[in-house]
Amino acid sequence: MYGTEGVRKETKRDVECIHKGLCARDSCSKALICTCPVCATKLKKNLSRVRECVEQSMLLWQKALAVSSTKFYYSSVRENMVRRVAIVGAGVTGLGSIKCCLEEGLQPTCFERSDDLGGLWRFTEHVEEGRASLYKSVVSNSSKEMTCYSDFPFPEDYPNFLPNDLYLKYLKMYAKQFNLLKCIQFKTKVCSITKCPDFDDSGQWEVVTVHEGKQNSAIFDAVMVCTGIFTNPNLPLSSFPGINTFKGQYFHSREYKHPDIFKDKRVLVVGLGNSGTDIAVEASRLAKKVFLSTTQGSWVISRVFDSGYPSDMLFNTRFQTVFRNFLPTPIVTWLIARKMNSWFNHANYGLIPEDKIHLREFVINDELPGRITTGKVLIKPSIKEVKENSVIFNNTPKEEPIDIIVFATGYTFDFPFLDESVVKVEDGQASLYKYIFPAHLRKPTLAVIGLIKPTGSLITTGEIQARWVVQVLKGVSKLPSPSVMIEEVNERKKNKHNGYGFNYCKALQEDYIPYIDELLTSINAKPNLFSMLLTDPRLALTIFFGPCTPYQFRLVGTGKWKGAREAIMTQWDRTIKATKTRTVQESPSLFEILLKLFSFLVFLVAVFLIFL
Amino acid sequence: MYGTEGVRKETKRDVECIHKGLCARDSCSKALICTCPVCATKLKKNLSRVRECVEQSMLLWQKALAVSSTKFYYSSVRENMVRRVAIVGAGVTGLGSIKCCLEEGLQPTCFERSDDLGGLWRFTEHVEEGRASLYKSVVSNSSKEMTCYSDFPFPEDYPNFLPNDLYLKYLKMYAKQFNLLKCIQFKTKVCSITKCPDFDDSGQWEVVTVHEGKQNSAIFDAVMVCTGIFTNPNLPLSSFPGINTFKGQYFHSREYKHPDIFKDKRVLVVGLGNSGTDIAVEASRLAKKVFLSTTQGSWVISRVFDSGYPSDMLFNTRFQTVFRNFLPTPIVTWLIARKMNSWFNHANYGLIPEDKIHLREFVINDELPGRITTGKVLIKPSIKEVKENSVIFNNTPKEEPIDIIVFATGYTFDFPFLDESVVKVEDGQASLYKYIFPAHLRKPTLAVIGLIKPTGSLITTGEIQARWVVQVLKGVSKLPSPSVMIEEVNERKKNKHNGYGFNYCKALQEDYIPYIDELLTSINAKPNLFSMLLTDPRLALTIFFGPCTPYQFRLVGTGKWKGAREAIMTQWDRTIKATKTRTVQESPSLFEILLKLFSFLVFLVAVFLIFL
Repeated sequence: MYGTEGVRKETKRDVECIHKGLCARDSCSKALICTCPVCATKLKKNLSRVRECVEQSMLLWQKALAVSSTKFYYSSVRENMVRRVAIVGAGVTGLGSIKCCLEEGLQPTCFERSDDLGGLWRFTEHVEEGRASLYKSVVSNSSKEMTCYSDFPFPEDYPNFLPNDLYLKYLKMYAKQFNLLKCIQFKTKVCSITKCPDFDDSGQWEVVTVHEGKQNSAIFDAVMVCTGIFTNPNLPLSSFPGINTFKGQYFHSREYKHPDIFKDKRVLVVGLGNSGTDIAVEASRLAKKVFLSTTQGSWVISRVFDSGYPSDMLFNTRFQTVFRNFLPTPIVTWLIARKMNSWFNHANYGLIPEDKIHLREFVINDELPGRITTGKVLIKPSIKEVKENSVIFNNTPKEEPIDIIVFATGYTFDFPFLDESVVKVEDGQASLYKYIFPAHLRKPTLAVIGLIKPTGSLITTGEIQARWVVQVLKGVSKLPSPSVMIEEVNERKKNKHNGYGFNYCKALQEDYIPYIDELLTSINAKPNLFSMLLTDPRLALTIFFGPCTPYQFRLVGTGKWKGAREAIMTQWDRTIKATKTRTVQESPSLFEILLKLFSFLVFLVAVFLIFL
Repeated sequence: MYGTEGVRKETKRDVECIHKGLCARDSCSKALICTCPVCATKLKKNLSRVRECVEQSMLLWQKALAVSSTKFYYSSVRENMVRRVAIVGAGVTGLGSIKCCLEEGLQPTCFERSDDLGGLWRFTEHVEEGRASLYKSVVSNSSKEMTCYSDFPFPEDYPNFLPNDLYLKYLKMYAKQFNLLKCIQFKTKVCSITKCPDFDDSGQWEVVTVHEGKQNSAIFDAVMVCTGIFTNPNLPLSSFPGINTFKGQYFHSREYKHPDIFKDKRVLVVGLGNSGTDIAVEASRLAKKVFLSTTQGSWVISRVFDSGYPSDMLFNTRFQTVFRNFLPTPIVTWLIARKMNSWFNHANYGLIPEDKIHLREFVINDELPGRITTGKVLIKPSIKEVKENSVIFNNTPKEEPIDIIVFATGYTFDFPFLDESVVKVEDGQASLYKYIFPAHLRKPTLAVIGLIKPTGSLITTGEIQARWVVQVLKGVSKLPSPSVMIEEVNERKKNKHNGYGFNYCKALQEDYIPYIDELLTSINAKPNLFSMLLTDPRLALTIFFGPCTPYQFRLVGTGKWKGAREAIMTQWDRTIKATKTRTVQESPSLFEILLKLFSFLVFLVAVFLIFL
């Protein structure tokens, strides 16, 4: 319920409801009885919690009173607060959403089509309809410290980048730790999600599901859609003239499982994304010849970045984000190109992006340049024509004999269980405010989680999205009016750029840290580095200059986790522990000692001269 | 024939023989008749050639006259010059030796045990006795521009690092181009090579061979042994306590062909050499778990070096060699460590060399750090104990279950067809002058080619060795006396280091460029960079600062190749051509133009200020 009529209903009882919601958190454990000055209820809570409650409640009162003089609408704080939440999908974002609902006192029910959790990360030998499909060798593209749930680090002996089986193991550990399984209904397909007749008032949804042939229907106060973006293959065959005459085998990368099929074949992989590159590299170990065709090219980076540290831990820092976003785009572009070419010159390896201004996602692959320089993978431009048993590329009239074509041409997404009037997908985008809320709905009780391609981890982004969504569902966090939201969505669709920082060329691409920070601000969980610099300078500097690990998002405010500081201060230890499985007693060489001594002397002389 | 009695025999006729040898080369083609002042023969040669002949001959006369007052002995210039040369093995060094003999007018006969040429580089599905054995995926460790025969570059579209099948194809092209096949007797095993009864006078050898069960014996004026150093596996089982109780499978890396055997097994690879690393990386794609055990550790570098250029092309330059060899060892060690750790910190990855002063061979592998950081390969220290189904390493008491152990523990070498009195192998070394000539023989008519581990290409090193050997066999190049040679050999065995430059810890390791230059000097084929700086400064600078490609060894003197200069000036073009299979029209960005303009203005201001 938006608008002033919603706000007018705010009585003492309404505020009490929010208040209870806030105080129901498990983290308030110290038993102290006091009386809340707002709702006069006896509360068994610790003092700081009570102070927080009171402050929150007072703020809400003030806002309610001042509402007619502001241009913002607030999401309603209703007689019957959102309680029952339907979650579609038990993948990484689904699991995160269940946990967020549980810890905020909501009642989640997760519908999972398959017979186990893990979504994308659960490898099966056969492709399952309606579920993302992995190939056997998939390894995560972001490191364990950057890609975990924000209050649940990976075990320290886990490798820095996770093979899919270990990733799934971690997800199961998470589900067990927070008792999520009880909320999941497996083998249950969601058929439709429709507004209840009184939606404009109640915001409720009717969710129709099928479990082992039996249809079921239930009413939910809210819905969180966590179906991901890797389910529907994009196979634009019409863009490949002659493909119908091709007598070899061709398929979408989604169908790919093992490299054995490439043995002694001449293989063409179309598309320089993460999957295309992985498949080409893998095929090159068995195939007779492998071509990797790309129209646009891309920057390719290795998981083993400067001095072997995980690339995302060095790249996704607050310092670098500030630095990038304050510099004009041409300088950022030039710096990025310089950095990317330091591993290998992308022009010399045939991979140079056609458009260096509008950045595509970086491709993460450790082995591609090695395979190119050993002649095992040949980079080719776009396809001109496909013939019966060969392909002609756009740079040369020579026909290259080909036995198998793999189309690693990405994915589209849709929501078959939702009516177009709820979420409409056009040009690879949905009109979602902050990539989450349908902007035009009268009630913000449906959210899409994980429909974004951030420059950081999707698991973390999804979790923060869910944390915000839960606060919106509870009425604690507020959305602007539909018109403001629609305006934001349309602006994003135009892909307008202000001339500073990164400039993305694709829908759903988003700069990780600024986006997360926006959501954190909405739930009062963004750490204030300026004040922290005075109270805990070591932590503040680590947060600013170090990797933006998810533990930062649990330091303060809603969802605070006691272990966050410790996790941040030990993030590098866990990173090194994973690979340092042989140690050698090291002592600095005489030269190193002399060098340090000399540097120190130079420093002393400099100080002496300055103060002379 | 050594000693003064040999020198006393030097008559006008002897010198004439040398002279003929010098002038018999095909490269002297301009027909001019003149009279040599030394031997008074009419010569159909060009003027510069004649001048060279005369200078050489005069020098020889002077030396012959002065011999009693010098401490040097000369190899004999005999009545019957060496003509018939037996070459053992038709691998890379064997082929190079055949060609060197042919181009210098000798008559080579090459005995090859197997049914085809290529030696190490010819992959077969089964291990053959007495021949090096490859695994299917082997790729050369040095780049095509650094590893070719000095007058026969690889085709420009060949990849920078050669898979074994392409390498073999190249060797066959070489054999065809220079008509080497006619000199090779396949399926012919050399049983024994013994001195002829008149060896001290004739220097001849009796070579007994077996071809299809039939024994044959022949007399040769000289022998070149080209059997390589990768034939006899080194399997020091006694160093692994408990190995006899191990119930799993174990074998030497020489037996390894395909990774299929590792499927779902727990694999332990012992030894961090090139093979051990390759096998561990390859196993890690199929195995359940892979451990790579190393006692000493090693620096690991990638073929894809700075900006993607081949590592050896950036590392093996004359400039860098001079730079390294003039710096004290601690600084060189520190610089090397800094450079090596820029890709990945070797301590953090468990690979740090135990002894950073005494360098081992670098391990060349593009994929190892990526496999470590994804947890697919675990680095372990040395083995404490092997049990029935597990192994205990030295850092932890935990037993690691193991199904297969691969001992990548290197190779030993011997010469079963030679008596110990000719070449004795002790502690992984043979007493060979310059790694080639048995130091104690009365006649320098037996040479071992390729028994060395240079920091550069073995194919090139072997070829230069053969070129020098042929000049020694022809009597044009001279060896010092046995005592001098023995002294050199003993010095090397002590592994004494002068405190500057590299410091190797292993027998047979040798700094590439200084070693090659020594040999080139002996055959007057070392380019003089100082004089070249005046006549052809572009070439001189390219040679000094650019990669030390083998074409440099064919610029001047004996064995000069007309195409050498062109090959040097286009070496980078061929390198880039191999990988640049997709091009994009590139124009510098506005920022780049401004940056260049600014740099130019700064330069102008600096010049202006200097001359103000």
